[in-house]
Amino acid sequence: MLALIAGQGALPTRVAARCGRWPLVAALDGFPPDELLPEITFRLETLGTLLQSLAKAGVTEVCFAGAIHRPTMDPNLIDQATAPLMPKILEALRDGDDGALAIVIRVFEAAGFSVRAPSEFVGDFLLAGGDHGKVAADASALRDIARARDVLAALSPLDVGQGCVVAQGQVVAIEAVAGTDWMLHSLQNPSPRVPKGGVLVKAPKAGQDLRADMPAIGPDTLATAFKAGLQGIAFAAHQVMVLDPDDAIAQANSAGLFLHGMDPLS
Amino acid sequence: MLALIAGQGALPTRVAARCGRWPLVAALDGFPPDELLPEITFRLETLGTLLQSLAKAGVTEVCFAGAIHRPTMDPNLIDQATAPLMPKILEALRDGDDGALAIVIRVFEAAGFSVRAPSEFVGDFLLAGGDHGKVAADASALRDIARARDVLAALSPLDVGQGCVVAQGQVVAIEAVAGTDWMLHSLQNPSPRVPKGGVLVKAPKAGQDLRADMPAIGPDTLATAFKAGLQGIAFAAHQVMVLDPDDAIAQANSAGLFLHGMDPLS
Repeated sequence: MLALIAGQGALPTRVAARCGRWPLVAALDGFPPDELLPEITFRLETLGTLLQSLAKAGVTEVCFAGAIHRPTMDPNLIDQATAPLMPKILEALRDGDDGALAIVIRVFEAAGFSVRAPSEFVGDFLLAGGDHGKVAADASALRDIARARDVLAALSPLDVGQGCVVAQGQVVAIEAVAGTDWMLHSLQNPSPRVPKGGVLVKAPKAGQDLRADMPAIGPDTLATAFKAGLQGIAFAAHQVMVLDPDDAIAQANSAGLFLHGMDPLS
Repeated sequence: MLALIAGQGALPTRVAARCGRWPLVAALDGFPPDELLPEITFRLETLGTLLQSLAKAGVTEVCFAGAIHRPTMDPNLIDQATAPLMPKILEALRDGDDGALAIVIRVFEAAGFSVRAPSEFVGDFLLAGGDHGKVAADASALRDIARARDVLAALSPLDVGQGCVVAQGQVVAIEAVAGTDWMLHSLQNPSPRVPKGGVLVKAPKAGQDLRADMPAIGPDTLATAFKAGLQGIAFAAHQVMVLDPDDAIAQANSAGLFLHGMDPLS
């Protein structure tokens, strides 16, 4: 049986609906899924007990879907089954996002579970290269996309940055720990130095384990990009989840935004 | 005679007061110096005429001091003396900040002026390595400083980023076209994902021409860093202007911030 470790956003629901038999849904305490009701809520301090409960329930495979942010930990709550995992968990909490998720994946694998990518269930969310929808990225937008891609590629080895905004050749914003939506919100009240227009580029880091935290583009991303006055969104072809593609393309069309698949960083 | 091409902030006044004979002060239209009254106000469209006027006035040396942001251009205002310079000016406007300033410096040099660094006049603004003031950067802050330095070093070849904020190992913000103060302001209303505390690290890019746009730390930087809840500020030793060092150290002390000189990127 599959356990879905559900984070926030609409992705967990889509995955649950596509995996044949309904999965066992587990969620991290304090980060309830937007639409699913979890059967199990766990804390990092009791992760060892979660692993045991999943195994007892007949779970052999797990899938991480949706955004899970760095939780806080209370050392007093760590239980006996979790104590041996603490060195790994603390290492993960100190690390960048990808580092952290890679460690969590290894903890699940070491406990005997196989970890499946959400994209195995919603492969149609991964769009190909080129323009989707009615608006095409023009020559100036393609130059901005290339510059943003260079910035993401330079930061990639440092486990920083899944998004970057470039306008008229100028780097306007680089995504940090606060995420894409926060970055775009901050552009709604820009410095007078920020050129108008621009593109948002999203890509996983080079070598990132795509079984967890694949970057996603959803209705909020499109709406916030539109409010920030951008011309469009580019994403690494086949490496970014677009939820749900038909709706996203329709939304981009009506907002006059392009939606462009570019070469992945790796 | 020296012409001071005065941008914004307090640096031009400090340079003017230290260069022996009072300089001829020139400023870009729309970017009046905060404290000096310019004798000449010029536009990019009439830069060629400025160069001629400076030469006629007996100017042989120029010094760029203070922040000058990317001005807009009206093609109808370009005069005859400036037309031949337009390819260079347009190249500069398309480029990153350092690229742009390097081109402007070359234009002045090609017209026969020698370009002097502000630091030649206010060398005492360049602080050495280590802690200045009462508060020392602790081990955790030194780790955050090293991570921010890595981010700036990775972006440096792309002519992006003179500043970065890291807190508890997480990259919180990376300076883009809007500048340091805007980046720090945006942290006053942070995402819940942003860890508390953190350090601001400022450094010129590797290989940056330090005759123009050397990064600066002034009273506003310290005040905004304090409001953003940071623990301190680190800067590339001997490569960042601290205005005025005694006041800055006193301000850091009273705010409980450290002020730490680190190894430059190059």
